[in-house]
Amino acid sequence: MSHPHPELSLPAPLKDGGVRVVALGGLGEVGRNMAVIEHKGQLLVIDCGVLFPDDHHPGIDLILPDFSSIQDRLDDIQAIVLTHGHEDHIGAVPYLLKLKPDIPLVGSQLTLALIEAKLKEHRIKPYTLTVREGARETLGVFDCEFVAVNHSIPDALAVFVRTSGGTLLHTGDFKMDQLPLDGRLTDLRAFARLGEEGVDLFLTDSTNAEVPGFTTPEKDIAPAIDRVFRHAKRRIIVACFSSHVHRVQQVLDAAEKSGRKVAMVGRSMVRNMGIAADLGYLHVPDNILVDFKKLGDLPDHKVTLICTGSQGEPMAALSRMANRDHQIEVGEGDTVLMASSLIPGNENAVYRVINGLMRLGADVVHKGNAKVHVSGHASAGELLYCYNIVKPRNVMPVHGEWRHLRANADLALATGVHPKGVVVVEDGVVVDLVDGKVRVAGAVPCGYVYVDGSSVGEADEALLKDRQILRDEGFISVIVVMDSSSGKIVAGPEITARGFVEDDVIFDDVMPKLTQALDDATSQGVSDTYQLEQVMRRTVGGWVGRKIRRRPMIIPVVIEA
Amino acid sequence: MSHPHPELSLPAPLKDGGVRVVALGGLGEVGRNMAVIEHKGQLLVIDCGVLFPDDHHPGIDLILPDFSSIQDRLDDIQAIVLTHGHEDHIGAVPYLLKLKPDIPLVGSQLTLALIEAKLKEHRIKPYTLTVREGARETLGVFDCEFVAVNHSIPDALAVFVRTSGGTLLHTGDFKMDQLPLDGRLTDLRAFARLGEEGVDLFLTDSTNAEVPGFTTPEKDIAPAIDRVFRHAKRRIIVACFSSHVHRVQQVLDAAEKSGRKVAMVGRSMVRNMGIAADLGYLHVPDNILVDFKKLGDLPDHKVTLICTGSQGEPMAALSRMANRDHQIEVGEGDTVLMASSLIPGNENAVYRVINGLMRLGADVVHKGNAKVHVSGHASAGELLYCYNIVKPRNVMPVHGEWRHLRANADLALATGVHPKGVVVVEDGVVVDLVDGKVRVAGAVPCGYVYVDGSSVGEADEALLKDRQILRDEGFISVIVVMDSSSGKIVAGPEITARGFVEDDVIFDDVMPKLTQALDDATSQGVSDTYQLEQVMRRTVGGWVGRKIRRRPMIIPVVIEA
Repeated sequence: MSHPHPELSLPAPLKDGGVRVVALGGLGEVGRNMAVIEHKGQLLVIDCGVLFPDDHHPGIDLILPDFSSIQDRLDDIQAIVLTHGHEDHIGAVPYLLKLKPDIPLVGSQLTLALIEAKLKEHRIKPYTLTVREGARETLGVFDCEFVAVNHSIPDALAVFVRTSGGTLLHTGDFKMDQLPLDGRLTDLRAFARLGEEGVDLFLTDSTNAEVPGFTTPEKDIAPAIDRVFRHAKRRIIVACFSSHVHRVQQVLDAAEKSGRKVAMVGRSMVRNMGIAADLGYLHVPDNILVDFKKLGDLPDHKVTLICTGSQGEPMAALSRMANRDHQIEVGEGDTVLMASSLIPGNENAVYRVINGLMRLGADVVHKGNAKVHVSGHASAGELLYCYNIVKPRNVMPVHGEWRHLRANADLALATGVHPKGVVVVEDGVVVDLVDGKVRVAGAVPCGYVYVDGSSVGEADEALLKDRQILRDEGFISVIVVMDSSSGKIVAGPEITARGFVEDDVIFDDVMPKLTQALDDATSQGVSDTYQLEQVMRRTVGGWVGRKIRRRPMIIPVVIEA
Repeated sequence: MSHPHPELSLPAPLKDGGVRVVALGGLGEVGRNMAVIEHKGQLLVIDCGVLFPDDHHPGIDLILPDFSSIQDRLDDIQAIVLTHGHEDHIGAVPYLLKLKPDIPLVGSQLTLALIEAKLKEHRIKPYTLTVREGARETLGVFDCEFVAVNHSIPDALAVFVRTSGGTLLHTGDFKMDQLPLDGRLTDLRAFARLGEEGVDLFLTDSTNAEVPGFTTPEKDIAPAIDRVFRHAKRRIIVACFSSHVHRVQQVLDAAEKSGRKVAMVGRSMVRNMGIAADLGYLHVPDNILVDFKKLGDLPDHKVTLICTGSQGEPMAALSRMANRDHQIEVGEGDTVLMASSLIPGNENAVYRVINGLMRLGADVVHKGNAKVHVSGHASAGELLYCYNIVKPRNVMPVHGEWRHLRANADLALATGVHPKGVVVVEDGVVVDLVDGKVRVAGAVPCGYVYVDGSSVGEADEALLKDRQILRDEGFISVIVVMDSSSGKIVAGPEITARGFVEDDVIFDDVMPKLTQALDDATSQGVSDTYQLEQVMRRTVGGWVGRKIRRRPMIIPVVIEA
């Protein structure tokens, strides 16, 4: 089994007839999923998603896969296959298409509708090829067959890639709900058939590989939702992911049964559910929808709201309701149903929202106190079924942090996959499949690419480090004006600080020291701006460390006048 | 049942003979637990802990209870009763004693030993009164009886306070392990006896009130620990809380059975376990301890390390091992056992550590994949027992966020406590007990008091808001030098930015606009520093919002020379 090799060098060119696989994201993190397959000089991209930043990436809007290793080979890309419409699988497509807008997008009807809506905002009209499960398409040297899989968004696909150098089966994100709401099962018969044909490399979703047993069917949360609708005295406010069509379907069904109307709140919720309804993935009961603005005309016990903000996002409707900063004034007797997961890292934000809503008198039903969420990913038990049905020659776990990839690899090993055939690798590590055998061939650069306001790829680790210092310590800026002809300081020092202390009076203490240090320096003939700035930095930095026990950023500025 | 009243005013003076209770921390958050009881002009403090900051408090070291409402009444405080030795119950004692060092501390032997060690660092020698379970002490008008309770630290106590105006039973933090490692049970016989006598107000630990059922006994994790010791091939590295004497005891016992030596790592671990061993709470098998520095002399399969860092604290030993920044080089075959909870908000940090250790080849056994942790707090089932045994007249849930307090209140109600007798209130809300009845009498100020470097209580919300802006957006500082006699700008504008973009070249774009705006202003006779700074702020702020789509802090400075 392969481990990460920090010292890996760029790989040698791929052997004739071999197949090369490299993930430019999604291996080592949950998000920015992207795999690139190479054969005979051509490339096939599978997914192109974004990663949402955490506390290590202050101020960052999005994190993209690192395209640098394919930047010079955009003409070789035959297509981008999109397995499903979640942001962590399609969100970076606009950034790749900005480099070359005519790369065809291949995916199911719903997936393409969602990415097209997103691309419209970026003013890109893509070339698309709609496929269904069972379809087979030749994309350059890649002969792709699409297989239905079940996930927390409809119309998800796995893709089987036949090349003259071997076959790959990529599951995308999936689970194996045996009683799915839309009846669309993960097609294990197809998995079995492809397994019989021979799967040289199986790329499998690792997200839930650590979770023992089986993921509960989506249908099993219906009783908890029904209970909410039976007992709620006033309004029901449901928060869930804006792509979770089946979850929204269950809420619509419950609302219909109880004679309530429904209003959708939040731009992405309105947009995505509009698309899903138009394409027939969401069945909206007649006359159930009302405009958010007309809710005032209805009695409270006839109202259901479906909104975003289930992860405690501060600008989303639900957080604003909890902060009494929204038109909807939540109060005694209202019920809030958070029908969603709690993504690690969001706990504080989510609990803040729950506490806020409860403090206003609402009943809050959530994952922690009712069965109102099931995962969209296959647990360990399901993955074992997969391995036993497919019987792959080689396995490369995808989609997850290291702990998830490791757990998934252990499952593959437990079903009898040969240890040499299991590659646990991270983003950028190049895996070659030659003559049915896999090996790590090297690595390509694969850093985090930050979207920061309107800049893409400019923010770097030094910038983030600066933000972390500013966040924890603030800064002190020290300015003096130097007469450039005499080399004398003619004004200042002037000190400004933010995020440090509020009361500037404390600087009275360092001011004489600073003036003295500058006098000493200039009287010794120092007139070099950089050297004077160093004197200022040392004097103020030393003082603040000793006296205030902090390490704010010190910004000395010498202006020549 | 009482809800928070944001418009509550200062309470009227307490009625003669009444008892007043106000929490200055711990109600609405998990931490900084502190209750103040008043009777006949005297005060009794129960616990005085710290709250650990989260992402809403960047750069803050600790958060203290708000002492402002008792600041003028320090002479009235008869004693500080400490229920147990956890930081969230004793951590703020040094800050209160700095205001008046001779307030007596009352607590069990271990609790006092831990706070004395902490006070020594602050150079405070406190007045102490050591009590045991069953002891009864008259502290001014407060007649206090102490009751053994079981928690995740030994020697924890509940306190029953008799006054001429009524009785209160405060549980402290507790659970009801029926097979505790040290045989010291939560004394339900005492609870029953005090209940018979009459408990007018029952203050109960809410931390686990949302958790259904019963907290698993500490003993039940022994098999999982033993399994680690049986199967580990090389070193075993255990991370747990540095106050969890029983957890460490279990590790010591397992190490002894398997013939391994043990080294303690981390200042607080070494200190606390030294105290616990000296006082007989920790039984250290003969010759099992080795100095950390001598580990090299032992073969790997004879080594156990017990260290801090179970919450992913970046400076603790475990994080540094995961980052290859520690003398201990974790590698293939090592086993890391994280025998601890995962405190909400720490998920990202903890998973980073787990991923890092696994990437180095270690096996990581943690709460997520083995039964290696149990909680220290009573679950809903245990709380029901308590309510039914004590049969209190009134209940005030303590220790928890709003959702915990609410859940605890619901349990009290379910056992038949009258709704008028259940007060769910937050920090600062004043509850009066008069003639056996409780009512909300008002509220006192009770904000977060921040320890920020060497400053206490100076950092405020505006400062934290500044830090958040600096973290997310960075800043741009714009400096010009104005000749004070002519009112003309003689140098600058000079622009410095941090945490914004790395490449200053982008400011070439705004520079002409800025110069123009300043020229326009000065030629119109504007020479007021503040007005010129506003011009600079507007020009740069407008530009950066439109062009870069960000909102960094803009710091304009006009220096007069």
